[in-house]
Amino acid sequence: MNEAAITLDGWYVLHDFRTMDWASWKLISKEERQAAVNEFLTFLERMQEADDAKTGSHAFYTVVGQKADFMLMTLRPTMDELQQLEAEFNKLTIADYTIPAYSYVSVVELSNYLAGESDEDPYQNPYVRGRLYPELPRSQYVCFYPMDKKREGEDNWYMLDMDNRKSLMRSHGMIGRGYAGKVKQIISGSVGFDDYEWGVTLFSDDVLQFKKLIYEMRFDEVSARYGVFGSFFVGTILDADKRAAFFEV
Amino acid sequence: MNEAAITLDGWYVLHDFRTMDWASWKLISKEERQAAVNEFLTFLERMQEADDAKTGSHAFYTVVGQKADFMLMTLRPTMDELQQLEAEFNKLTIADYTIPAYSYVSVVELSNYLAGESDEDPYQNPYVRGRLYPELPRSQYVCFYPMDKKREGEDNWYMLDMDNRKSLMRSHGMIGRGYAGKVKQIISGSVGFDDYEWGVTLFSDDVLQFKKLIYEMRFDEVSARYGVFGSFFVGTILDADKRAAFFEV
Amino acid sequence: MNEAAITLDGWYVLHDFRTMDWASWKLISKEERQAAVNEFLTFLERMQEADDAKTGSHAFYTVVGQKADFMLMTLRPTMDELQQLEAEFNKLTIADYTIPAYSYVSVVELSNYLAGESDEDPYQNPYVRGRLYPELPRSQYVCFYPMDKKREGEDNWYMLDMDNRKSLMRSHGMIGRGYAGKVKQIISGSVGFDDYEWGVTLFSDDVLQFKKLIYEMRFDEVSARYGVFGSFFVGTILDADKRAAFFEV
Amino acid sequence: MNEAAITLDGWYVLHDFRTMDWASWKLISKEERQAAVNEFLTFLERMQEADDAKTGSHAFYTVVGQKADFMLMTLRPTMDELQQLEAEFNKLTIADYTIPAYSYVSVVELSNYLAGESDEDPYQNPYVRGRLYPELPRSQYVCFYPMDKKREGEDNWYMLDMDNRKSLMRSHGMIGRGYAGKVKQIISGSVGFDDYEWGVTLFSDDVLQFKKLIYEMRFDEVSARYGVFGSFFVGTILDADKRAAFFEV
Amino acid sequence: MNEAAITLDGWYVLHDFRTMDWASWKLISKEERQAAVNEFLTFLERMQEADDAKTGSHAFYTVVGQKADFMLMTLRPTMDELQQLEAEFNKLTIADYTIPAYSYVSVVELSNYLAGESDEDPYQNPYVRGRLYPELPRSQYVCFYPMDKKREGEDNWYMLDMDNRKSLMRSHGMIGRGYAGKVKQIISGSVGFDDYEWGVTLFSDDVLQFKKLIYEMRFDEVSARYGVFGSFFVGTILDADKRAAFFEV
Repeated sequence: MNEAAITLDGWYVLHDFRTMDWASWKLISKEERQAAVNEFLTFLERMQEADDAKTGSHAFYTVVGQKADFMLMTLRPTMDELQQLEAEFNKLTIADYTIPAYSYVSVVELSNYLAGESDEDPYQNPYVRGRLYPELPRSQYVCFYPMDKKREGEDNWYMLDMDNRKSLMRSHGMIGRGYAGKVKQIISGSVGFDDYEWGVTLFSDDVLQFKKLIYEMRFDEVSARYGVFGSFFVGTILDADKRAAFFEV
Repeated sequence: MNEAAITLDGWYVLHDFRTMDWASWKLISKEERQAAVNEFLTFLERMQEADDAKTGSHAFYTVVGQKADFMLMTLRPTMDELQQLEAEFNKLTIADYTIPAYSYVSVVELSNYLAGESDEDPYQNPYVRGRLYPELPRSQYVCFYPMDKKREGEDNWYMLDMDNRKSLMRSHGMIGRGYAGKVKQIISGSVGFDDYEWGVTLFSDDVLQFKKLIYEMRFDEVSARYGVFGSFFVGTILDADKRAAFFEV
Repeated sequence: MNEAAITLDGWYVLHDFRTMDWASWKLISKEERQAAVNEFLTFLERMQEADDAKTGSHAFYTVVGQKADFMLMTLRPTMDELQQLEAEFNKLTIADYTIPAYSYVSVVELSNYLAGESDEDPYQNPYVRGRLYPELPRSQYVCFYPMDKKREGEDNWYMLDMDNRKSLMRSHGMIGRGYAGKVKQIISGSVGFDDYEWGVTLFSDDVLQFKKLIYEMRFDEVSARYGVFGSFFVGTILDADKRAAFFEV
Repeated sequence: MNEAAITLDGWYVLHDFRTMDWASWKLISKEERQAAVNEFLTFLERMQEADDAKTGSHAFYTVVGQKADFMLMTLRPTMDELQQLEAEFNKLTIADYTIPAYSYVSVVELSNYLAGESDEDPYQNPYVRGRLYPELPRSQYVCFYPMDKKREGEDNWYMLDMDNRKSLMRSHGMIGRGYAGKVKQIISGSVGFDDYEWGVTLFSDDVLQFKKLIYEMRFDEVSARYGVFGSFFVGTILDADKRAAFFEV
Repeated sequence: MNEAAITLDGWYVLHDFRTMDWASWKLISKEERQAAVNEFLTFLERMQEADDAKTGSHAFYTVVGQKADFMLMTLRPTMDELQQLEAEFNKLTIADYTIPAYSYVSVVELSNYLAGESDEDPYQNPYVRGRLYPELPRSQYVCFYPMDKKREGEDNWYMLDMDNRKSLMRSHGMIGRGYAGKVKQIISGSVGFDDYEWGVTLFSDDVLQFKKLIYEMRFDEVSARYGVFGSFFVGTILDADKRAAFFEV
């Protein structure tokens, strides 16, 4: 039997993509819209409190193109909290003027391919904790996509032995390191939670770095032979001071 | 001709995933919503009576993310009873405020790959009966996904001979056994009933065990070479005392 | 050039799957619903007259799960009559409360793979006529699925020579024969008429026989290497005396 | 570099499939429906004038099953005229009671695989002109499907050399010739215009000939190894004297 | 590790395809429609100002067939400006009468496969600048499609070494050059931004040149073995003086 990779698992993640139903939104009065926006902004402020308390984290971005109008990404210690926040959102007035566009359920994950060996409990290691329970940055741009490792004929990631996978992942990781300081990357595992095996969320102040990083990786065997990609979403940050304007019609 | 696996078949199963149309739901009066919820809770209580009488079983969970808002999983001795319950649900008031999201029709199944040999009628064996006519647990979390065995080029499960399949399934089963006490697994067959060949429903009080179990299995040849997976749904239990709150807006 | 199989073709077939829009259906008055149901029942009674006169046949079943609420399967000597009946259905009041869910256009077909050789005109043979112009049974359960023969790499049914196909089909047919008396099978060809090459409709009083038959066949080379399957629909009969109740809300 | 086939290109083609929204259609008054039908019939009569003047051609058929209710196929000398006619249709009252179901944009095409060699300008050859600028027949039945030539592993049509493709197409053409007088076939190219590479439109007074022709071709290597097919649509003619009745509810 | 191609990146691009909801559009008064059209035309005139100032570019075309009614293609120096223009469009009255049909997010790209070698900063080269920051032509026709390079078994573009890819691209580029003066081609990269790796936009005054160019390329190994194509859209220009008429009903 082939040895599975061991993963360290951190906060649970919900990516929630929504499209505004602008036509219905324009039909209600300015006062009603204002009240709905205020209610939503209050909801987002409460989410920020979790960020401040380091009991979770979130990010709020527009999405460019027709795939969605905005993305709310939420990290929490339990799946129940994600479910609870999703339920709260659905009960907001503004939710009635949104159309579900896409969502993704996962958990922040570190794989042991790149791990050193030690007797230490990794969950006590501050560096590891910083990666498993990340404070999402307020970068200008976000990129999200789900992905699988391929299992087709000769190109079957899961039939490779551990050493092989470890060596391939090391070379793959080198590319990522070249983007340190330019792109922050959150890998979350979704086996058993959603339709792909991983979600990848990238943050950067230079949107072109997403393209450069992913394109460079595509020539690396891990992506070239074994990468299967879902939809790609790209967006710009919706800072607290721009949110009201975004919803104003 | 290749020898097919013999299966033992138990209760019929309907997984019914529904999304709330929250915007319409908010449009009716509090009294109307209250009446609709009460009618639905009564329906669920009647379902519980079948569980108590061991003439069937059911489970009621939220679904995390946009795939659905809740899942009602129902087990009954006949397909007709499933159809009847589905018809009853559609006639409830609350059904008018739900949007069908996904459903799956199957029958609880035990395959003979792992069976011992004996002259006994397996349908009289109490252990077998407990697995074919299961009492669904009230675990905190549920995971559901449909799956096929692959038939592509060299990776064709149905062209393997019985001994080969039996040996592969034995090793596969070992992984499952490692999760005994942590994850309860219900396998249901759906050949001829729905679009995949099997449905898998997992229950656990630790949602991370779903990911660990399925990820570990993915490195096993049965999944790695022969597994084809549909959508994955994950949810949290909606206990009787939390249902009214779930529907309150 | 490879020799194509010769087919005998009988009645044209339309499988029409519909979902009830229960929410709209409940909005009209009890009297309006009653009138719409009566009009529909009269339409179905007229269809039964063609069955009685052996100028066609039809079957009316619920569908279990969310894929549809009911299926009306109609057999007629010409494509024009199918089109005409479909147009008549659309003009019924009840049609306004249904949502098209799936349909399939085909013609009852016997292939010559299993045929003996004789000088006789097969269309005069009473056994052949009984299969080409079948009286649909009133079994308790129905199963429908469309299918193709695969054309991928080494697994290309249409590149096999006639003898090879004939021998494979013979072994395949043996499995079907094992279910004689338990499952009635109608094969209809749809090349040029719909998106798959064949439709398969099974009737039985024991719904489990659908699963047993199709699962056993899946290990046979014809299905294992060459079968490509579409969606599966399973349903229970809607006898004349249960129809009014089915639509009652 | 591999030699591409040269094509001769004739009239541009739009296949426009529409589904009637019968429920909305019934909601307006008989007079409004009558006015809408008359306006549409006048539109179709103007289309017939182009047929009569041989400045274009069109065909108007029902579609059997739920894929659409009718198909309007239009041929014109320029893409602009197709766009103009589509815009005119959208502005008709009846268009508001139709739902777009499918469309296909292409141009009538003759490939040089079967061409003789001569110095003549083929666009002046009356036989060639008759095929590039065809008068669509008023046959009882129509069949439409889009298709690609496969590019997968060993089965890559576009990697075959010209002689190979020519020889395969010759054998393929022989089958078509066997249906001369029974089926009229219009091939239109859609590379760069729509999602498949070709559209195939067949006309016949015997609907079974569509199935026989396409099934026989499927055993020919061109289809067996290299054919990739989209959706199939089959319909019956809507003669001028039956149109009013078709829309009457 | 395999060497990735270096790309030069220019303006960001949004292709926005919209379908008119003609039925709703007809429901409002002529004056309201006039006001909505005027507002939209003013929006388009402001876009033209960016073209005139060479701070961006745009193109506005109808789309033939049901895929969409019109396409607005916008090029700007930053992703933020694209997002801003999309938000402005959504707030126009006419947007309420459109249905999102498709969109594509990318950035104009030149790959180094065809580049000469020099010490010069390519971003200062006037020819390169003209290609990275193009003034979109006002050709009569447009064609758009997204594409990937294949990664399947033996046909894996990303596993080829740089020299191999360079030589294949050179031969591919030769075909394109044969269409110089007839077809203008804008390649935009979308790795990390949208679901395919590239978008291709072609402009021509002869719509048939799209078909000839793409068909000829399909026999070239780069397309034949490695090309994966998405949907194709073809349209005719909507000049400023024809826009009002297009929206008139």
